[in-house]
Amino acid sequence: MTLAVRYTGARTLDTAPAKTSDPGPGEVELAPAYVGICGTDLHIFHGDMDARVSTPAVLGHEMSGRIVRVGPGVDGWAPGDAVTVMPLRWDGTCPACRAGHRHVCQRLDFIGIDSPGALQQRWTVPASTLVRLPGSLPLDRAALVEPTAVAVHDVGRAGVREGERVVVVGGGPVGTLIAVVARAAGAEVRLVEPSPHRRLLAEELGLDTWDPVADDVTDLVRRWTGEAGADVSFEVSGAAGGVDTAVDVLGVRGRLCLVAIHPRPRELNLHRFFWRELTLVGARLYDRSDFEKAVALVADGTVPTERLISQVVPLTEAPAAFEALESGGNVMKILVDCTQGAAE
Amino acid sequence: MTLAVRYTGARTLDTAPAKTSDPGPGEVELAPAYVGICGTDLHIFHGDMDARVSTPAVLGHEMSGRIVRVGPGVDGWAPGDAVTVMPLRWDGTCPACRAGHRHVCQRLDFIGIDSPGALQQRWTVPASTLVRLPGSLPLDRAALVEPTAVAVHDVGRAGVREGERVVVVGGGPVGTLIAVVARAAGAEVRLVEPSPHRRLLAEELGLDTWDPVADDVTDLVRRWTGEAGADVSFEVSGAAGGVDTAVDVLGVRGRLCLVAIHPRPRELNLHRFFWRELTLVGARLYDRSDFEKAVALVADGTVPTERLISQVVPLTEAPAAFEALESGGNVMKILVDCTQGAAE
Repeated sequence: MTLAVRYTGARTLDTAPAKTSDPGPGEVELAPAYVGICGTDLHIFHGDMDARVSTPAVLGHEMSGRIVRVGPGVDGWAPGDAVTVMPLRWDGTCPACRAGHRHVCQRLDFIGIDSPGALQQRWTVPASTLVRLPGSLPLDRAALVEPTAVAVHDVGRAGVREGERVVVVGGGPVGTLIAVVARAAGAEVRLVEPSPHRRLLAEELGLDTWDPVADDVTDLVRRWTGEAGADVSFEVSGAAGGVDTAVDVLGVRGRLCLVAIHPRPRELNLHRFFWRELTLVGARLYDRSDFEKAVALVADGTVPTERLISQVVPLTEAPAAFEALESGGNVMKILVDCTQGAAE
Repeated sequence: MTLAVRYTGARTLDTAPAKTSDPGPGEVELAPAYVGICGTDLHIFHGDMDARVSTPAVLGHEMSGRIVRVGPGVDGWAPGDAVTVMPLRWDGTCPACRAGHRHVCQRLDFIGIDSPGALQQRWTVPASTLVRLPGSLPLDRAALVEPTAVAVHDVGRAGVREGERVVVVGGGPVGTLIAVVARAAGAEVRLVEPSPHRRLLAEELGLDTWDPVADDVTDLVRRWTGEAGADVSFEVSGAAGGVDTAVDVLGVRGRLCLVAIHPRPRELNLHRFFWRELTLVGARLYDRSDFEKAVALVADGTVPTERLISQVVPLTEAPAAFEALESGGNVMKILVDCTQGAAE
């Protein structure tokens, strides 16, 4: 018998035995090793996404693991292979897919939200979602590939170029990863984050940080850029004030990449968009090339994954980890070790 | 003695004799023929821009005319030449200029707002602002080159391509010109405009229109595009509802070009920008290539300028024309004939 962590309703998770079945044609059965808990998982835990999520739901979409069994018709994969999963299933026929934007398919199945996720000891997924991991990459670090792919996609959407000046607003896991990926692309980066703990962590990664509470960020950017303003900003805070900062710091023709989810409309200084001919670019998820680049950045150490992992908890303690994350505190990424706490 | 129309304070224009002086080095003296009244001129007339405009101010930046005198060091221009003016003077040294975006110079002098404009019988401007008009182009029609250059710039900023589906929200002069220029670029265009008069005019130009009051525009776009949504929208209405429409009609990776001036922040559905990976692009003014393309489009009849000119009034009646425009009514473009009503 294997275990799964299940969301059963607002603020309620349990662990329960899960049935396994043979992988069907084109499918593989995985043994998840490590699963990261992400902001979206917390939103679901809060009950904010009950209209979308069918209970009981197995969450989890940031993962690493190994193949256990391979279904009929699956080529190129074998039991024991180390993998991560790009958790997207598109229909291939909608207008977005036909236009080549399958990752934002109009009927997208996001695995881990719309269908069962990785927070369990056996997980069956389409082989088409697999992304190979180098054998040398420890599986705990590999669980950071998915959020790194988000960052790679965001930096790509913003079109960050070498030598550009970039302001990242929000220093949680994704904001910090964006800062690291933008720096690797040759940009000069400043990270704006109110939490002293997160600023300290970023500084330990060699990032320059500003505190939006104590500092006048717009003025700092003006001086930093010789009155020109920043080339690119990323809004990763989800806060109204973060949106304002991400607009205010941009110079003429600057690009604001919108990463955070803002469930309700926000006031935006449209006059500034007109006056400085700014661009706002929405960015969501990733595609396979982003994932493959993320694997490379994690594997070669460009992304200091080990510094971003605050804690590793066994599967049976995942519910408590959600509670802890919800109450805030000084954590970045918590991983659930699905090989621990098993009742096999 | 020549006459000038002067803005002297909120809701107050007069006509007064103006002194002329010899054009200085690099300058030319023009005899404006026709000057269009634009929305920005009306904003100034309302007193909305008193913080920027020094009184008495001569307004007017949409014009056609002929050279009267040429200052020292001006090559390639001669008295009698038909010209229009690109009314921008940049400093060439600010960060925007150095980055190649001189038209949005951080210390831009917009001639007709920040310095004296064309609503007078003699007007001295730098020769560098001149744009040559074909001898065959009637000067009244040529007064529409400047707003056409705005439309050319906007369509370029949105990157409209052949076969794309474009929704223009707002059917005043600029919105109608954008629709015409986008159509000339090969796009399929729908114009959204509540005024029956403006819709009728647009339909006479062969444009398809929708009434945002009677029609569910988002639903119409859905059906028009087979559920895909539009590729591009232009927000030219200046209204909060116009912003919403311009967002709602876009499909995945759609581009919203922001043309209208929204003096105050507007609520924007940022979640939609994230979800559909939309882009918002601010567009302001134009550069010389936009102006030259606009001359060509006006000259070859692509832009049906004669249909957009509602009325031509003599210079001495310009103050009354401002009053009439302010009260709304069924007008598109009013031209002031600067050669009439003179006390020469």
